[in-house]
Amino acid sequence: MGDPSEPARSAPQPIQPQLGAALNTDLYELTMAAGYFEAGKAENRATFELFVRRLPWNRNFVVAAGLAQAVDYLLNLKFTEAEIAYLKTLPQFEHNHSEFFDMLAGMRFTGDLFAAREGTPLFAGEPFLTVRAPLIEAQLIETYLLATIGFQSTIATKAARVVRAALGRDVVEFGTRRAHSPEAGVLAARAAYIGGCTGTSNAETGFRYGVPVFGTAGHSWVMSFPGELAAFERLQQLLGESTVYLIDTYDTLEGARRAASLGRPLWGVRLDSGNLGELAMAVRRILDEAGLRDSKIMVTGDLNEYKIQELMAARAPIDVFGVGTELATSADAPSLGVVYKLVELEDAGGRRYPVKLSHDKQTLPGAKQIFRAADHDVLARASECIACGEAGACEALQRPVMIAGQLVESLPTIAETRRYAAECLGRLPATCLSLFAAEHAWRVDISPELAALNESVSKGTAV
Amino acid sequence: MGDPSEPARSAPQPIQPQLGAALNTDLYELTMAAGYFEAGKAENRATFELFVRRLPWNRNFVVAAGLAQAVDYLLNLKFTEAEIAYLKTLPQFEHNHSEFFDMLAGMRFTGDLFAAREGTPLFAGEPFLTVRAPLIEAQLIETYLLATIGFQSTIATKAARVVRAALGRDVVEFGTRRAHSPEAGVLAARAAYIGGCTGTSNAETGFRYGVPVFGTAGHSWVMSFPGELAAFERLQQLLGESTVYLIDTYDTLEGARRAASLGRPLWGVRLDSGNLGELAMAVRRILDEAGLRDSKIMVTGDLNEYKIQELMAARAPIDVFGVGTELATSADAPSLGVVYKLVELEDAGGRRYPVKLSHDKQTLPGAKQIFRAADHDVLARASECIACGEAGACEALQRPVMIAGQLVESLPTIAETRRYAAECLGRLPATCLSLFAAEHAWRVDISPELAALNESVSKGTAV
Repeated sequence: MGDPSEPARSAPQPIQPQLGAALNTDLYELTMAAGYFEAGKAENRATFELFVRRLPWNRNFVVAAGLAQAVDYLLNLKFTEAEIAYLKTLPQFEHNHSEFFDMLAGMRFTGDLFAAREGTPLFAGEPFLTVRAPLIEAQLIETYLLATIGFQSTIATKAARVVRAALGRDVVEFGTRRAHSPEAGVLAARAAYIGGCTGTSNAETGFRYGVPVFGTAGHSWVMSFPGELAAFERLQQLLGESTVYLIDTYDTLEGARRAASLGRPLWGVRLDSGNLGELAMAVRRILDEAGLRDSKIMVTGDLNEYKIQELMAARAPIDVFGVGTELATSADAPSLGVVYKLVELEDAGGRRYPVKLSHDKQTLPGAKQIFRAADHDVLARASECIACGEAGACEALQRPVMIAGQLVESLPTIAETRRYAAECLGRLPATCLSLFAAEHAWRVDISPELAALNESVSKGTAV
Repeated sequence: MGDPSEPARSAPQPIQPQLGAALNTDLYELTMAAGYFEAGKAENRATFELFVRRLPWNRNFVVAAGLAQAVDYLLNLKFTEAEIAYLKTLPQFEHNHSEFFDMLAGMRFTGDLFAAREGTPLFAGEPFLTVRAPLIEAQLIETYLLATIGFQSTIATKAARVVRAALGRDVVEFGTRRAHSPEAGVLAARAAYIGGCTGTSNAETGFRYGVPVFGTAGHSWVMSFPGELAAFERLQQLLGESTVYLIDTYDTLEGARRAASLGRPLWGVRLDSGNLGELAMAVRRILDEAGLRDSKIMVTGDLNEYKIQELMAARAPIDVFGVGTELATSADAPSLGVVYKLVELEDAGGRRYPVKLSHDKQTLPGAKQIFRAADHDVLARASECIACGEAGACEALQRPVMIAGQLVESLPTIAETRRYAAECLGRLPATCLSLFAAEHAWRVDISPELAALNESVSKGTAV
């Protein structure tokens, strides 16, 4: 992209605790915590894993995202006095739990966090993150972690699909207005950048995370002037080389002619309605005939990866796609079935591997590691050291992020994360990157040691 | 519901400005604002309306929600020094705009806000809210208002559908973990309550908005004990009359027998997997045979309004539905096509009615009022006084909420809003309340005066 796509000189902000984050959890996490406390289980060390059982609709991978916000949350976890006073009013806590609440008031996250880097493509059953902490701490954080990782991974995945469909053209995220709350808009824009978008229209995302921001003018700009030409002239004076005229307020081709008549400086024009492919061709001709061959065409308006694929297949002369609603809500697959499951528990009696047998919801026991080779993964026990295949080269994807409540090292910058995601995606086979579900797109083996643990745990389960 | 459904004694919190709210907007709102400022339009008085052009998939109405958060935002709107310093670094502002930024630093919302009450069912073309303010202020708030009203209205509407399908059984919102960010989870739970849910599992929503909260224990509770019976015994000691056993960790019917063996105190049991209708019948028999006829059955697990309608049609003995992912993301219609359009502009030359002619996106000009009669609405000019039909009884739905930047009167409590929504929905015809799209489910007439304005504006448009 030209001028409007210059990355904002970013000023990433210091980590900030989110208002009310500790209490932003399901009440049952708190009633269970009280129960664990009173059953003397507070100090039992639990290991939970966050993963998806199945990939979403039309997806052959999921791009992990949201870890930075999960870490912010864990570093700042603290219940306020007002929050604890509120909890004491609830009928679920009507029996005396004063020792539990005293504990809760002093509680911080003191556990370990292992995770795949943000930007890593993951597959069904592979842990996005693993928490090893005192049972109460590990339990209380379930809801927030699921919402944080699940949402941003959903959007990073959608963005990766949209960007792939655009075949090298820039994709800018424009969806805050249709996101699930303004804050979701900020985070969707962050995740979309990780997934490969060039930037976003959301200024807060630029400010907070250093993501490049774009945008010039909308329909109300044009309509606030008595005529379209006057609106365009003013915009050109205002923005110079960054000028992008929105040309569909009255008549797109007429708008294109007015834009062309003003000549340079001009970055390009934006189309927001009608048959975008046909209009782009006609507008391209108008601009070319006016000698504006280097000016660009951006299109917006209910786009998604499927429509972009169609436009590219038709060789529409489009330089930049602005994608809003469908990207910021992942409209064709608006949620990710993330779960957070207890896989190990150490108490006075030693280490146990709890296992759930309910219909269609089995979970492999024990803490795990993901080993990635060139053409497949191996899901293994965390304690294993695996050499995948003959070449033996494979990477362990789960890395320590926090130990005993402290960050092990700085997290990567968002630009590094975006680059890492692009590299990882670039190594996946085309079947995997298809916009449509493909069977056996990526092989995930279970290591013999993990399989053996699963078998012994399944047999030995006495309930 | 029994004990677990006792409303939390609510302690609504004081209004709090949201971190980074002013900058949480599309960059083009800011570039346009700079342009208006430099074109001498800062003080032009603009009127914008927020509405949907079409109702979403399978919806015959939308329940308005999110106004309280929109008002919080407008009352607290303020750019910080750090935010303005960031904006000055952007290429879009590389020309000198120091007077604009001085203005921006001192800017507060000084306009008027008119809106339909939260909980009001609205139809295509009807304004959720109308902003009348200096052009720059009215423009800058577009993105945040759309995301706030659009999201909560999406969820309140989904909740109204789920609650209707449950035919009087309680519905509790359980979706934070799959919401689009933790903050979206808090707001989804608020909106779901407005739409008719009995409460939520989200403790922060209870704390912040006074919504009743529910929840007892999950699978990890059961799995953290060596056996299911031990886990149930502990839970009963902990919660007494609030006890809800989750009985599907190993085998649902076996779980039901263990639950029954422990007798009272007991509120009920929860099923989370398998064929919920058949299991509920079998579990009901087990509980009844143990003399626990008053204990309840709650079901959860990927529920939505369609599945609940099927379960109710099959007369499954279910007392409470817990609905998560599909409710908190409105999975079958995850966004609402809200738009925010300039409909009037007063400048030195007098009052104008801008109009956009682009394909399929016409907007009726001028500020409007919605008049609601027993069986239809009339969309009229804001200045009109309408007596609908012969009886003449009809209600003007848009009321003043803020005048000159100040709140006119306290907003209703959330309990009042929920009651109001239920009353309004109760007056809609059955066709309108169907879970499936119905043609002409509700008539929205255009007043002759509004039609005349539209005609004269359309004819007179010179661009």
